[in-house]
Amino acid sequence: MKSRIRFLKDLDPISLKDPILIQGLPGVGNVGKLGVSHMIQELKAIYFAELFSYTFPYHVLVNNDGILRLLRNEFWFSQLSKSGGKHDVIFITGDYQSQTPEGQFTIVNMILDLAEKYKVSQIYTLGGYATGSVSKYPRVFGTATSLSLIKQLKDEEIEINESGGPIVGASGLLIGLGKMRGIEGACLLGETSGFMADALSAKVVLEKLIKLVEIELDLGPLAIKAQNLTKLIDQMKQKQRHRPGTRRQESEEEKDDLSYIG
Amino acid sequence: MKSRIRFLKDLDPISLKDPILIQGLPGVGNVGKLGVSHMIQELKAIYFAELFSYTFPYHVLVNNDGILRLLRNEFWFSQLSKSGGKHDVIFITGDYQSQTPEGQFTIVNMILDLAEKYKVSQIYTLGGYATGSVSKYPRVFGTATSLSLIKQLKDEEIEINESGGPIVGASGLLIGLGKMRGIEGACLLGETSGFMADALSAKVVLEKLIKLVEIELDLGPLAIKAQNLTKLIDQMKQKQRHRPGTRRQESEEEKDDLSYIG
Amino acid sequence: MKSRIRFLKDLDPISLKDPILIQGLPGVGNVGKLGVSHMIQELKAIYFAELFSYTFPYHVLVNNDGILRLLRNEFWFSQLSKSGGKHDVIFITGDYQSQTPEGQFTIVNMILDLAEKYKVSQIYTLGGYATGSVSKYPRVFGTATSLSLIKQLKDEEIEINESGGPIVGASGLLIGLGKMRGIEGACLLGETSGFMADALSAKVVLEKLIKLVEIELDLGPLAIKAQNLTKLIDQMKQKQRHRPGTRRQESEEEKDDLSYIG
Amino acid sequence: MKSRIRFLKDLDPISLKDPILIQGLPGVGNVGKLGVSHMIQELKAIYFAELFSYTFPYHVLVNNDGILRLLRNEFWFSQLSKSGGKHDVIFITGDYQSQTPEGQFTIVNMILDLAEKYKVSQIYTLGGYATGSVSKYPRVFGTATSLSLIKQLKDEEIEINESGGPIVGASGLLIGLGKMRGIEGACLLGETSGFMADALSAKVVLEKLIKLVEIELDLGPLAIKAQNLTKLIDQMKQKQRHRPGTRRQESEEEKDDLSYIG
Repeated sequence: MKSRIRFLKDLDPISLKDPILIQGLPGVGNVGKLGVSHMIQELKAIYFAELFSYTFPYHVLVNNDGILRLLRNEFWFSQLSKSGGKHDVIFITGDYQSQTPEGQFTIVNMILDLAEKYKVSQIYTLGGYATGSVSKYPRVFGTATSLSLIKQLKDEEIEINESGGPIVGASGLLIGLGKMRGIEGACLLGETSGFMADALSAKVVLEKLIKLVEIELDLGPLAIKAQNLTKLIDQMKQKQRHRPGTRRQESEEEKDDLSYIG
Repeated sequence: MKSRIRFLKDLDPISLKDPILIQGLPGVGNVGKLGVSHMIQELKAIYFAELFSYTFPYHVLVNNDGILRLLRNEFWFSQLSKSGGKHDVIFITGDYQSQTPEGQFTIVNMILDLAEKYKVSQIYTLGGYATGSVSKYPRVFGTATSLSLIKQLKDEEIEINESGGPIVGASGLLIGLGKMRGIEGACLLGETSGFMADALSAKVVLEKLIKLVEIELDLGPLAIKAQNLTKLIDQMKQKQRHRPGTRRQESEEEKDDLSYIG
Repeated sequence: MKSRIRFLKDLDPISLKDPILIQGLPGVGNVGKLGVSHMIQELKAIYFAELFSYTFPYHVLVNNDGILRLLRNEFWFSQLSKSGGKHDVIFITGDYQSQTPEGQFTIVNMILDLAEKYKVSQIYTLGGYATGSVSKYPRVFGTATSLSLIKQLKDEEIEINESGGPIVGASGLLIGLGKMRGIEGACLLGETSGFMADALSAKVVLEKLIKLVEIELDLGPLAIKAQNLTKLIDQMKQKQRHRPGTRRQESEEEKDDLSYIG
Repeated sequence: MKSRIRFLKDLDPISLKDPILIQGLPGVGNVGKLGVSHMIQELKAIYFAELFSYTFPYHVLVNNDGILRLLRNEFWFSQLSKSGGKHDVIFITGDYQSQTPEGQFTIVNMILDLAEKYKVSQIYTLGGYATGSVSKYPRVFGTATSLSLIKQLKDEEIEINESGGPIVGASGLLIGLGKMRGIEGACLLGETSGFMADALSAKVVLEKLIKLVEIELDLGPLAIKAQNLTKLIDQMKQKQRHRPGTRRQESEEEKDDLSYIG
């Protein structure tokens, strides 16, 4: 067995009401992971299962308390229906997404097995769309596996991804393979520079998502992170303007300053 | 299961009359895919099965309507015998061919399982042969797995590939492994620069193929594509001639202009 | 079967008293392998099993007598309890550690199967932590899979690895996967330049280890190796100081001199 | 099944008298393949089986008659006992040796299955040892998996490989894994520049081999090839000496001239 899901809580499938699945894994601008992690925290989701895989790299992580642990993907749930929500939600995030086709296909299929077990009706995946430049008003692009979902995306003024271009990684595969099992899905991609973990992009993606799936969510903490990031970028830009030096030097400094902010 | 074929139509094997298989996948100059796609369109072939594989890369595509789909290879059929043709034909094309030995061997064997199921008697694979320079009169090279087919290729003035050199990818493997199962095959390679999707090369390959397998086919639309491509190349060359600049600059521009035209 | 363990002695599991497992494989500064090899020699451990694997590279080694042998990992045991020790010990070292995720996970799981068979209660893995510069007083960093072990590490003044950074290779995976089977473990990493097989780093790691696991061990031979290495480095540095030449030349010489000393 | 052996002749295992196996595959200086191919030709060996593998690259070859075929390893036999020889011989050569650990281990084990079936008592593998410079009197190095064979190698003045260094590829693995099955073996490596297919190195290896295994073999044709190669190298060297030009230019030309001669 190359990958396995370990259940930490014996979550009875019938205990979830019309659940949907929302996935955000590390990727471009870390948009997906930032977004889903924020939802997990704000909605007080409960950690109930974790996935380990031979297809992750052969290293381990050390927690703040010095405890070593394996790389993993994480499964959390929130029974939003209990407080009047339309759907219960299963969230997926994690340390890593596999960088091999076999790993991606295997893990995505294990996630879909779990989705079927809990009778998930829809899957939403979040990610980033790298443009190479910082935008103060990042757009949200979308694609889906059904025309009815495409229509809903358009109703929320999400720009439909009509380029025919490829979407790389788990956020595309999960809904592509999900459709083969009769589960419809949509993928929302936030515009991002690709140079940093982009809280602003995560925020605009969540703004669209929560309307689509009718979830109430406080975006305040993410907005603050996004503002701090914007300030940081503005400060870096001002410093550059006031530094003496040849144009050549400035462009080199800019390159340094705009390196990845994790 | 790393790869699987999904049938969209329940095509009864006995409903095909003496079928042959014609394959053209993405590759050098996209000659094979262009050729087979043209046949599928002109012969009003019917889409009946699709192959998905873990050995394809882990990305997905988005259609013009915004609908996301998995990478796939496609199976189409044409009952040409109903309008007096000698053979019914199964066509194979797709988004991608695997870039690993295991992927190639696995998929080719699944295609051969399908070929055996439908009692395919011959396999023709189409591809490109890169020369690095644009030719107005591209040649067609051939190889086969039986001396009788070699003779037929020579009769059609196809140049026999006697170099002993390797043929890379599915167009070689499919007929090589096909022979192990008692299905004879030929591989036709159109001369191409390798710098662009080459409709002219696809056209000359099809001219030879349709004589070999006695299929009537309108090559007009492909000829127009080829003419447009030729005009485009001529225009680019003229522009270069009239541009001022040092020789060094010209050669750099030429390099840019001759980059891949998809 | 991609990997297998061959038993050279029929070591009855019940013959070992409360065994612990200590692993040191080739890696950064070769710290782990040097340390465990020293323990094997000083404690007169007995060679009882060896592991071969498809996931090792496809080369073989030649012994001093001209005899060719496969790459392998080695299993040794020492019945320290017979001379009053608290634990019997199983040692693991070898020629190589796999450089693929699948190889690492497979082999680590086979080692854990063996550990379970012999009812191993704790696993200690040794390795190096590369800093890029030579230290005369290398530190020892530690991580573990239980808070009680973390406490013991702190009691021995081992610096707890709280960075959250990754630990690459078998020394992390073995205790990470071991915990999944209910075997607690710790990983000790000796500070090392990373430029040479570092006997001094191995010595300081063993100094900490033998207190943790209450083993008596003569570190004299390793101390001599470490002194010789230190002298060699000092000599190299002095030579550089007394050599005439521009600064540029000196820095190039230094680079040569500090290349890996195996 | 990732690899398979196809039998072309139903060679009864009991029909071979005390067979030994001699393998030479493509590799350094092509020494092994040149040597074994020469033996196959001179000893009129019979082609009886071929091995195909998913672990070979995904290309095919075209014969001189235009017929396409898969990459393969080849099995030939010679009943030398019928003309008074001490052993019958199974030869292995081929187009390719796998460049992945899994491919190498899998194929070598399939060859050993065949060796066991035919009750092979000894395995000899031939290869090249690259030194980077052309020698007129190339040496032969040897290693083996038993001390009795090491003694025989020494008796034939083969230099025993005592460096402890690795031997890469099938010539090492076959005898290393063979020993695990109780079949002893030796590996003979001819000194070679590594820049060309080296008939002289193949000749000196065969001179040693045929004494070890008591086979009569005409080395004349190989000697002629070796002389032609030596003449060619001498001519190239003389040309260089007589060419005008700066030292820098000469060294560049030499580099060109000494590129691989296949």
